[in-house]
Amino acid sequence: MLNFETMSPNDLRAKIRAREITGPTAGMAKGYTQANLAILKKEHAFDFLLFCQRNPKSCPLVDVTEIGSYTPSLIGNEADIRTDIPKYRIYKDGVFTDEVTDIKGYWEEDMVAFLIGCSFTFETPLLEAGIPIRHIEEECNVPMYKTNIACEKAGVFEGPMVVSMRPMSHKDAIRAVQITSRFPGVHGAPIHIGDPAQIGISDIEKPDFGDAVTIKEGEIPVFWACGVTPQAVAMQSKPSIMITHAPGCMFISDLKDEKLSVL
Amino acid sequence: MLNFETMSPNDLRAKIRAREITGPTAGMAKGYTQANLAILKKEHAFDFLLFCQRNPKSCPLVDVTEIGSYTPSLIGNEADIRTDIPKYRIYKDGVFTDEVTDIKGYWEEDMVAFLIGCSFTFETPLLEAGIPIRHIEEECNVPMYKTNIACEKAGVFEGPMVVSMRPMSHKDAIRAVQITSRFPGVHGAPIHIGDPAQIGISDIEKPDFGDAVTIKEGEIPVFWACGVTPQAVAMQSKPSIMITHAPGCMFISDLKDEKLSVL
Repeated sequence: MLNFETMSPNDLRAKIRAREITGPTAGMAKGYTQANLAILKKEHAFDFLLFCQRNPKSCPLVDVTEIGSYTPSLIGNEADIRTDIPKYRIYKDGVFTDEVTDIKGYWEEDMVAFLIGCSFTFETPLLEAGIPIRHIEEECNVPMYKTNIACEKAGVFEGPMVVSMRPMSHKDAIRAVQITSRFPGVHGAPIHIGDPAQIGISDIEKPDFGDAVTIKEGEIPVFWACGVTPQAVAMQSKPSIMITHAPGCMFISDLKDEKLSVL
Repeated sequence: MLNFETMSPNDLRAKIRAREITGPTAGMAKGYTQANLAILKKEHAFDFLLFCQRNPKSCPLVDVTEIGSYTPSLIGNEADIRTDIPKYRIYKDGVFTDEVTDIKGYWEEDMVAFLIGCSFTFETPLLEAGIPIRHIEEECNVPMYKTNIACEKAGVFEGPMVVSMRPMSHKDAIRAVQITSRFPGVHGAPIHIGDPAQIGISDIEKPDFGDAVTIKEGEIPVFWACGVTPQAVAMQSKPSIMITHAPGCMFISDLKDEKLSVL
């Protein structure tokens, strides 16, 4: 069996393009940044870019294509964003209409692709520091919640911040603040620690996205701004067409995670 | 005499609006972020925002107005960007045509104002750490140089990175790397230390902008990406109209410098 963990991003993208890989990308090309995708038409591009600029903790852009270009040249020089993600979702007027493995048929001349960093990047150094990550231990998706924290509005785009949650010991929580502060380009430090009610989460056992995880005796929930925020916000504005990656099926970039660390 | 150093940003902006202050803003509203200005028309706004996004060390955006809005709402809720800067420069087709204290007559419905962070923000913590800053000691402008480092292109915008230089002892240089790394949102860590030729600077005594400063025996030049870069790059593309602040006459924002620190 091929070892996807040590394979290069370029080789993996070739396999994805050839539809030899059509599922989740977690664990592939270890050490390389994976990114969320949101494609919008030109009419919304400035406002959405401005929204990301104003909400950097929720919307850490790792690349944005030029209008009409399907190559995220900064993080994947040979890549084609229309074919190099295992699975895409098509939304029309904010409604999910289709899941496909190739979006060549949907691509338009005035589209812009936004590649948004994800928490995979800071989970690796957390694990390396010996901090257990519950949803990895329990082999499920990270729990995500809508909060009462409003994002900064930009044009038609507005909505609440979505957060991801990782329970940990108080000692690990302090260390996790230090480690993730080194990555301001991919969510950065937590936005909240402790009482979920303070950020408008009424039931920690019922996440809005992803799966619930065990919070053990003596553990504290630690919340980070989540890359689902911009997708959720864009969807709410009901653009005529919007294309995203399917959950877990990310873009594997040439960017090394360590490049995103400021210290 | 009024003490501008301890006056609030809002009060200072009122005085600037009333033309009671028409000169440089250095040292005013200590602890609050001052910003460079670049105003462009909508046709260039997406590309310029993308240019800043792709070159965050040179172009640290602290706010961008919505199309047609003259209020940088994130950093100056009551501000009017058309009147709240002491002096503006007007460029037509890339040529400097006028210097004015008010741009109401130049403002158009499709203009976008880009507020770009400046090195004042990280110079305060350097001084507080006991690191002398030569151009402040010598009461002149920081020396700035064009380099052979190409910025990441975005649409019509491309050009070399401009850097500012501060000479210091080797010990201070190490500490300065640590301190400025805490401010990834305002230029961050240096981009080069030592031999100027390596980044294409042929004569350190002849800066392209600002003033030359003394480099003492045993000191090493330390280079940071400079906020002049985006203005220089935008100018090169010769937009029909572009408005900037006049040198040293900055926008005084409500944002505390410490807000821009990640640690």
